[in-house]
Amino acid sequence: MKIGFIGLGRMGQAMARRLLEAKHDVGAYNRTPEKIKDLVAAGAKPLGSIEQACGYGAAVFTMLADDAALADVAEKKGGLLESLPKGGIHICSGTHGVTIIKKLTAAHAERGQVLVAAPMLGRPEVVASGQAGVVIGGPPGALVQCKPLFEAIGRRAFEAGSDPASAAAIKIANNFVLGCAMEAMGEGFSLTRKYGVAPSVFYEVMTDGLFNCSAYKIYGKIMVDESYAKVGQMAVLGLKDADLALVAGGLVGVPLPSGNVWRDRLVGAVAHGDGDKDWAVMALEQARASGLA
Amino acid sequence: MKIGFIGLGRMGQAMARRLLEAKHDVGAYNRTPEKIKDLVAAGAKPLGSIEQACGYGAAVFTMLADDAALADVAEKKGGLLESLPKGGIHICSGTHGVTIIKKLTAAHAERGQVLVAAPMLGRPEVVASGQAGVVIGGPPGALVQCKPLFEAIGRRAFEAGSDPASAAAIKIANNFVLGCAMEAMGEGFSLTRKYGVAPSVFYEVMTDGLFNCSAYKIYGKIMVDESYAKVGQMAVLGLKDADLALVAGGLVGVPLPSGNVWRDRLVGAVAHGDGDKDWAVMALEQARASGLA
Amino acid sequence: MKIGFIGLGRMGQAMARRLLEAKHDVGAYNRTPEKIKDLVAAGAKPLGSIEQACGYGAAVFTMLADDAALADVAEKKGGLLESLPKGGIHICSGTHGVTIIKKLTAAHAERGQVLVAAPMLGRPEVVASGQAGVVIGGPPGALVQCKPLFEAIGRRAFEAGSDPASAAAIKIANNFVLGCAMEAMGEGFSLTRKYGVAPSVFYEVMTDGLFNCSAYKIYGKIMVDESYAKVGQMAVLGLKDADLALVAGGLVGVPLPSGNVWRDRLVGAVAHGDGDKDWAVMALEQARASGLA
Amino acid sequence: MKIGFIGLGRMGQAMARRLLEAKHDVGAYNRTPEKIKDLVAAGAKPLGSIEQACGYGAAVFTMLADDAALADVAEKKGGLLESLPKGGIHICSGTHGVTIIKKLTAAHAERGQVLVAAPMLGRPEVVASGQAGVVIGGPPGALVQCKPLFEAIGRRAFEAGSDPASAAAIKIANNFVLGCAMEAMGEGFSLTRKYGVAPSVFYEVMTDGLFNCSAYKIYGKIMVDESYAKVGQMAVLGLKDADLALVAGGLVGVPLPSGNVWRDRLVGAVAHGDGDKDWAVMALEQARASGLA
Repeated sequence: MKIGFIGLGRMGQAMARRLLEAKHDVGAYNRTPEKIKDLVAAGAKPLGSIEQACGYGAAVFTMLADDAALADVAEKKGGLLESLPKGGIHICSGTHGVTIIKKLTAAHAERGQVLVAAPMLGRPEVVASGQAGVVIGGPPGALVQCKPLFEAIGRRAFEAGSDPASAAAIKIANNFVLGCAMEAMGEGFSLTRKYGVAPSVFYEVMTDGLFNCSAYKIYGKIMVDESYAKVGQMAVLGLKDADLALVAGGLVGVPLPSGNVWRDRLVGAVAHGDGDKDWAVMALEQARASGLA
Repeated sequence: MKIGFIGLGRMGQAMARRLLEAKHDVGAYNRTPEKIKDLVAAGAKPLGSIEQACGYGAAVFTMLADDAALADVAEKKGGLLESLPKGGIHICSGTHGVTIIKKLTAAHAERGQVLVAAPMLGRPEVVASGQAGVVIGGPPGALVQCKPLFEAIGRRAFEAGSDPASAAAIKIANNFVLGCAMEAMGEGFSLTRKYGVAPSVFYEVMTDGLFNCSAYKIYGKIMVDESYAKVGQMAVLGLKDADLALVAGGLVGVPLPSGNVWRDRLVGAVAHGDGDKDWAVMALEQARASGLA
Repeated sequence: MKIGFIGLGRMGQAMARRLLEAKHDVGAYNRTPEKIKDLVAAGAKPLGSIEQACGYGAAVFTMLADDAALADVAEKKGGLLESLPKGGIHICSGTHGVTIIKKLTAAHAERGQVLVAAPMLGRPEVVASGQAGVVIGGPPGALVQCKPLFEAIGRRAFEAGSDPASAAAIKIANNFVLGCAMEAMGEGFSLTRKYGVAPSVFYEVMTDGLFNCSAYKIYGKIMVDESYAKVGQMAVLGLKDADLALVAGGLVGVPLPSGNVWRDRLVGAVAHGDGDKDWAVMALEQARASGLA
Repeated sequence: MKIGFIGLGRMGQAMARRLLEAKHDVGAYNRTPEKIKDLVAAGAKPLGSIEQACGYGAAVFTMLADDAALADVAEKKGGLLESLPKGGIHICSGTHGVTIIKKLTAAHAERGQVLVAAPMLGRPEVVASGQAGVVIGGPPGALVQCKPLFEAIGRRAFEAGSDPASAAAIKIANNFVLGCAMEAMGEGFSLTRKYGVAPSVFYEVMTDGLFNCSAYKIYGKIMVDESYAKVGQMAVLGLKDADLALVAGGLVGVPLPSGNVWRDRLVGAVAHGDGDKDWAVMALEQARASGLA
């Protein structure tokens, strides 16, 4: 397929490469063009504007850092809403709030355009290896049309339903379950430390048994090693994810008390100057709250 | 080795069978003797009192339901403290609070006896299959002496340290991390449901990716199926576990905010009449709090 | 003094009347002019636009329902930012978030205008009786200049400092302390009810002793009478206040765990269909969570 | 009336003096007799044992520090249960858990004795001044019989009902509402401080308006002055009160999320070495969690 791609940071590039490898024709637009030289060398066609990306093929991806960037790209003069042709599909990857997804769904519909939400599950290196999942939500026809793209990008596509907000909610909730798992793990480390247990021992108990999965292995390891300076996702961005979850819950009447705990620990971590550390630093913040750090 | 065994409910029997299969000589005492007929048929020697169990071999296991039962067996006339010979080892399996373990450690020490805490990780059927883990804490010499027993019972022994309370804390913290994971999962199900997502879809997303482990697969499945009537662990016993964790935290200055959330959901479940359901029923209680049930 | 006034709902009218009674010259602009007939009869001069209100005197009040309304009035074409003369003072009453107040402070400053935040403490009827307080924050010179206005409106002005956001934060925090007090009271009612205590008895104990103040007397009474249908402030607006507090805390690194509890109870009340009831309905929501309703 | 009195610490002495002043005949037993010399000088008759106190009059007060002390006095050889004559009334003041009160109610009833719970509202100096309240719960006949005693001790008696546990629950819930109010106030101080507001200003706003009552004035003042070293009630005892509330809630299916927050702040304060400070120190602990201390 011929598709445009807007937003080629680490995640966007990993996705675009997968598309190129599957012989799709990718027109790439990035605000800072020098960053996509390698991608162009790999076969992507460099584009000069959002408008060009919108007209390049039947669909255009966006993979943007946050809701503000998405709103800007969509709503500004010459942006997506203005530039996407009637019937054009906007495939919105990235982790976004349900509010902007709902707003964008309506705005596209008004113009005869279609929104598909397709947030990625997995970090850029997982995407690059073809092992990532993708959650997709949007009108059934558009999902069918875009199927080859999702097959190219990831190992498995999870169908959320016809409402793009459903896909956004799943992504938010998956991050939520992760953040809460990390927070609970951090509490468990503080608790056992106070009873003289080395973190590595508690880590072994958890990950050998009930929690033999990457959520606990990856983040538990960071907590054991206290390697918070090697940043996967920054605490301030974890806080953004927590806010997305709590806002999503508030809008539909779902109290998320575990989410509050998760958010508070990140708020505290930021207050103590750890906002730019890996978000597993919530275990350090928990240790602080326990008089251990 | 020759050992006594007190408390032969489902878990105790599974452990005793493992010991018998490994050719250890097991003297078994249960308050209601008729329940251990099968075990006796399998080679265990039936005993008539705690006193006999204490004198049967170099060590005596207890596998009791809760702290009250343990206190009773230990402290009553003719109980463990009175009956265990000098140098005798009390191997205390079961999930117990740090307070009683600390108290018992001191009480045994006063009498020249030794306490080893050895809580099991895994349900009775996992123990029966030889796949369970065991956490062990106690004086190094006693741990070495009992090593053949732990090798017989489980797949892996995790050494917590020389203080039995460390082993108790690990077991409590592992349950804690599980309870909090279940609570967060339940919140995630309510959140995604309100955005039109079928629980089975969110379950797939979680367990295909970050949470591809038994904690999420087993309990997430119960939540998807709402099969709370088929009880693994009752909600009221989950609540007991939550209390063990919060008490353990309070004693050493560790706030456990995720644990509060876990406990509150179970308190609510009990208030709504679900105390005898499987403790995964906290997902139903979360649904109630979200106006979904 | 000669002043403009924008936003004459119940609270705005009460304030404007106080200003008129103190012989200030008030030019009033309301989006729906018919609503201010009585005020005009009382001496206010009706104005046809925001622009006219901005040019009417040395200062212009806004008393608007929420941040969206304030943003609209300030930023739209012909709005406050465009229309207020250099040196003009915008006195922003109403309960607003710290983000918009900070943004507005900067936007006014860029244009040589001055922002004073002056949120009211007390309901419209208290303002009407002259017994309300007002929190004021802004450049010292502007505060001095506006002093006669604050003296006319309220019984007491609390000086928050030279940053308007300080005044906004005080108002938000005062609401926060109130919301948390109400939530705790609601929990106390559920707890005592389960031990057979009539709510009126627990109410007497509280308000006769430590809590002999309007926060507990007014809202505790509503809880005892379950008169949630007679609405002072709607639960959905209480939820807005909770969000203002949590956002304000998140921005500066202050976890507000009591605020989470408050917010969750309101989220739950809305989920159960009580969003348009008085926000004291959180006691009913607590009762629900306790299996009492 | 002729009555015995067991437990003459600061609170017990204040109560006994009120009884003496009202011309009741008080027989006093304290474990360390030298502490009641002044009371004896004021007219109390010194007694040598619990047994003597139980036989002195128609009723015997206990005013003990905690549940352990009460259990000891009641259950030991020569204790209350053994010594109180049939028909004798045990008036149990002090703040006790619902579990021990229920147990004691049953134990007394078995022996034909009567339990009245009569926890005091107010510190010893308030009791001394005759301004304290008392909550009373027990069989109606016993309450009538003891009325002159309650009239002598306090300004007002609140009738909880015929179950002594009701009175205990009210006392626990009143402390709970106080603890939660203090916690929320502490959060409010941290929030406003981060926006440049002096604590004294926020204190004035609160206590001039909605929170013009002793709970906020007394404890808010301690927080403003940071005078935590001058101890009214120690943080560790506040923690005991929080535990009483959470246990009471757990027993009857009432989640108390505000109580969790209150408890966690005290747990943290203890972890940071402030367990022997005034329990208002939870505001300092909140400041710590906010990176302010």
